[in-house]
Amino acid sequence: MRTSIATVCISGTLADKLHACADAGFDGVEIFEPDLLAAPESPEEIAALAGRLGLSLDLYQPMRDVEGVDEAAFAAVLRRAEAKFQLMRRLGMDLVLCCSNVGTATIDDDAVSADQLRRLGDLAAGYGIRIAFEALAWGRYVDDYRRAWRIVEQADHPAVGVCLDSFHILSRGHDPAGIAAIPGDKIFFVQLADAPRLSMDVLSWSRHHRLFPGEGEFDLADFTARIVEAGYTGPWSLEVFNDTFRQTDPRRTALHARRSLRWLEDAVAREIPDATTHRGDLSMLPDSAAPSGVDFVEVKAEDTSAIEELLGQLGFTSRGRHRTKPVTLWTAGDARVVLNEQHARGWEPRLAAVGLEVDDAEAVDLRMNELRVPRAYRRTYATEERLDGAIAPDGTEVYWAQAADEGDPAWVGEFEHGEAARETAITGVDHVSLSQPWDAIEEATLFYTAGFALRVDSSTDVPGPRGLVASRVLVAPGSTVRLPLNVAPPILASQRAGAALPQHVAFVCDDVRHVARAARERGFAPLEMPANYYDDIAARFDLSEAAVDELRDLHLGYDRDDAGEYLHFYTRTIGEVFFEFVERVDAYAGYGAGTAPVRLTAQGRR
Amino acid sequence: MRTSIATVCISGTLADKLHACADAGFDGVEIFEPDLLAAPESPEEIAALAGRLGLSLDLYQPMRDVEGVDEAAFAAVLRRAEAKFQLMRRLGMDLVLCCSNVGTATIDDDAVSADQLRRLGDLAAGYGIRIAFEALAWGRYVDDYRRAWRIVEQADHPAVGVCLDSFHILSRGHDPAGIAAIPGDKIFFVQLADAPRLSMDVLSWSRHHRLFPGEGEFDLADFTARIVEAGYTGPWSLEVFNDTFRQTDPRRTALHARRSLRWLEDAVAREIPDATTHRGDLSMLPDSAAPSGVDFVEVKAEDTSAIEELLGQLGFTSRGRHRTKPVTLWTAGDARVVLNEQHARGWEPRLAAVGLEVDDAEAVDLRMNELRVPRAYRRTYATEERLDGAIAPDGTEVYWAQAADEGDPAWVGEFEHGEAARETAITGVDHVSLSQPWDAIEEATLFYTAGFALRVDSSTDVPGPRGLVASRVLVAPGSTVRLPLNVAPPILASQRAGAALPQHVAFVCDDVRHVARAARERGFAPLEMPANYYDDIAARFDLSEAAVDELRDLHLGYDRDDAGEYLHFYTRTIGEVFFEFVERVDAYAGYGAGTAPVRLTAQGRR
Repeated sequence: MRTSIATVCISGTLADKLHACADAGFDGVEIFEPDLLAAPESPEEIAALAGRLGLSLDLYQPMRDVEGVDEAAFAAVLRRAEAKFQLMRRLGMDLVLCCSNVGTATIDDDAVSADQLRRLGDLAAGYGIRIAFEALAWGRYVDDYRRAWRIVEQADHPAVGVCLDSFHILSRGHDPAGIAAIPGDKIFFVQLADAPRLSMDVLSWSRHHRLFPGEGEFDLADFTARIVEAGYTGPWSLEVFNDTFRQTDPRRTALHARRSLRWLEDAVAREIPDATTHRGDLSMLPDSAAPSGVDFVEVKAEDTSAIEELLGQLGFTSRGRHRTKPVTLWTAGDARVVLNEQHARGWEPRLAAVGLEVDDAEAVDLRMNELRVPRAYRRTYATEERLDGAIAPDGTEVYWAQAADEGDPAWVGEFEHGEAARETAITGVDHVSLSQPWDAIEEATLFYTAGFALRVDSSTDVPGPRGLVASRVLVAPGSTVRLPLNVAPPILASQRAGAALPQHVAFVCDDVRHVARAARERGFAPLEMPANYYDDIAARFDLSEAAVDELRDLHLGYDRDDAGEYLHFYTRTIGEVFFEFVERVDAYAGYGAGTAPVRLTAQGRR
Repeated sequence: MRTSIATVCISGTLADKLHACADAGFDGVEIFEPDLLAAPESPEEIAALAGRLGLSLDLYQPMRDVEGVDEAAFAAVLRRAEAKFQLMRRLGMDLVLCCSNVGTATIDDDAVSADQLRRLGDLAAGYGIRIAFEALAWGRYVDDYRRAWRIVEQADHPAVGVCLDSFHILSRGHDPAGIAAIPGDKIFFVQLADAPRLSMDVLSWSRHHRLFPGEGEFDLADFTARIVEAGYTGPWSLEVFNDTFRQTDPRRTALHARRSLRWLEDAVAREIPDATTHRGDLSMLPDSAAPSGVDFVEVKAEDTSAIEELLGQLGFTSRGRHRTKPVTLWTAGDARVVLNEQHARGWEPRLAAVGLEVDDAEAVDLRMNELRVPRAYRRTYATEERLDGAIAPDGTEVYWAQAADEGDPAWVGEFEHGEAARETAITGVDHVSLSQPWDAIEEATLFYTAGFALRVDSSTDVPGPRGLVASRVLVAPGSTVRLPLNVAPPILASQRAGAALPQHVAFVCDDVRHVARAARERGFAPLEMPANYYDDIAARFDLSEAAVDELRDLHLGYDRDDAGEYLHFYTRTIGEVFFEFVERVDAYAGYGAGTAPVRLTAQGRR
């Protein structure tokens, strides 16, 4: 499978883009015309640069408004096209995208469009060029790929085929099953983009909100499988118009884009039965079960003693100091908190790493390599457990290790001079909330879905006193791992994400009231929830007065859905991190979204 | 006319919001329930604070899902409502907003909803409370204010009336003429919001994109006039859900919001004939003709000599130094550029001020005072022309002065030791492009529309190599003044707006080729446009080869629309500013949008 990407997907000058795409491992690019027009290099210089970088120039795009016009207008089309064909020869290119007419079409007739495409094909063929005709979702008359194919079929010219773009087809809800009717060799090009399902005009949706495969809600595995099964053997090319990717570092975005195609290749390989001839060289990623739990969380700071005091009050046990590093371990049930003072000069406490338990650590390792995810490194000595990890887009280090059969994982034995684990109602980690820079959330989504087989569970906006916090929850199957990813309002964007919006770890308890009460006896002061909040709980839920009084007394948050109840309390924030303690009654699946705005306001007062 | 604002419009804690609204001169507020729930103050303390600040608490909101439900659900509604009525008594409030049912409605029957509102009214009346029923645009059954009014009419209860919200009515395209059918005393409350016309689901549009009056595309003057004519005498209250205003400084946003109501009061006063009794105390702003031209632009820097050299090359005349300040004047035709080195230590050149010519400077002055716009101050001596100005939201100082009948304005006489103005093909200022911080664009729009009667002419996104630049053009009637306001992509947001995206002044010429050629002879080097750009011009327009060669030779941009042609060239950027020279052939109305991306790329190379 060959990979390609439209230069409009990423930022920078055309030369920047070519370098970034080559470095990221793409085989070729689509030249987006405005990028060429703005480039100081001549077409010959661009062709030479691409050649030197090993990139093929796969598609020149777009040529607009070429068919469905009257003869006078078509004469102008041919004149303009000829100039572009000459330009393409200078670039050494042989395929051009013609989109269905949006601006100048006056004739709604397949025969006219077919005739004009045929004559354009004659002109193109003289330059050794082929035309890929694409139905735009908002084309004036031609807005459906099945109609575009009928027109191409009628044009019946060897230099005229179709271009299929997943966005134009799936955004309109058109059934990709019709792709089977198109001979593979008449599919001249394929453009791939994912997108969230948005209710807005399709042009704005297309121009601003496309995503790389795996980040949105389109079924791209099915779409692409149809194309492969139709016999298409050309490149899989990304065309993603996105306001964020247009401004982020092109090298980073190109790697991110390439990773999305590796994910898609895997998904398509799983979609197409082995037996079919079309599957070709498509390769699956190493199988890796999703994580079965959180192995540890690590808080890093120059001085972690305020965190130690807090964990002690909350019933965690100090399990001692690592035998080779300035690192301590605190545990409660299966919750393990590593406090790290190494290489942390000047750091306020922040969530620096998360460890996940997996069934096959080797497979995750291979998978991360295939996805070209940057790797995390921690020095380990011969007598220590190996620590494999990757760096998530927000900078958090994510490690993975074989799940222990029973009891503590082996690495716990590297900590010395600790106490024996105490009984506690805390049983483990419920969720880990990671604050994301606004320009990393899509990349982070792909990191967790492609790397660890998590899936997007829900998205919501949480109103805080300084703006809306966008929250997207990723979960492992069975909710064994839950990662809410939160983006702070942009006015805070110049700060570190964790400083703008603290991160937190939520620990799950059998009896959160007991944990809260025991902590209070050890001197713990929770984040104070306002009295008005409890008046509202009393108005909304039919709880007894005593039950509400108990919530108020312990500063517990409360929520209920059809499946169960949620009780929880928060610590104060230390540096960039705080903790939450939660109890899920029955099958409550949320995160107490009603309490979060109150919590954000209370945190704003600190 | 009394003014009010929902606390959800602005950022901060509830106490912050009350202070900000009082400082901005609002008479009252709507208490948005989540703000109260998150507040540490008791209801009595909030009531006392509001009293001390002179704010009335006009509306408690929202109460959801109260009607169209079965009897079991309605019993829960009454229980919940009673708790809220008790809370409202503690706040000393007597009006609550009930929105049409979105979540729990199962009965689509006016009679049922009317009966339930009547019973809710009975309960409310016992607490001295009235209910304002509002049709949400996305209500499950009740989504039209006319139906809400039918239900209220049928409920026929003195404690039950309607709330009319401009967004819910105008977003759906419902004709506000129906308001005339509602007796004024049954309109219990009015909520006002403007919005851009967006094609998206109405709930997202409402929750994220509302604007203050005068900033969007709704005809709020007409809407509000209908309400006044119906005999409504309650407060005009703003309810604006907007992602930006939720995070900006609440004091600034509250002033901005209050200004929008002053603008609306004027617009409504002009809409309602004098003779009607309903007009009441509505007061117009002082009449002020829109500006008739640009008086001057000012570039400020510690050292302006690089700008002087450039202006000299371009044919401007040095008209000397100001007699009391380190300021020089350069002119060409009616274009006047003031170079200011005062109080500019460490500044790179930036566009610091714009002077506008107006017909009635005194009226603009009064108008700015009424709008409570912050004033600009420049020291002037007894023998000098007075300089009245205001500070635009982006920090640019905007001055206004009586237009001169003929020749130079009087203040030019304050400059000494200059040369006599030379002949030049430059005739004046075509447009001034001001870079805006992303969180100031709406406030800036209101500043220019309310203060100077400009109007929004067009909006577009310009793709640059580092992201999309959002551009909104404000023009005076007759296009005597054109101000494109540009917002840089957010990745650059941590920089000063002008540093992220340079500002520029475009000068208009009779013969831009002559200006370019003459400048070249004086050593001027324009911003270089790439050869590929000219190949595209040759392909797109039927220009002679000689004509394209001349454009290429002079680095001229070229555009054409149905009305005419546009030829222009750019200087290099110095500090945060550059200049453009344009020639408009016939009635071309644009700004060469096709060239802007090429220009942004060329500027990125500097």
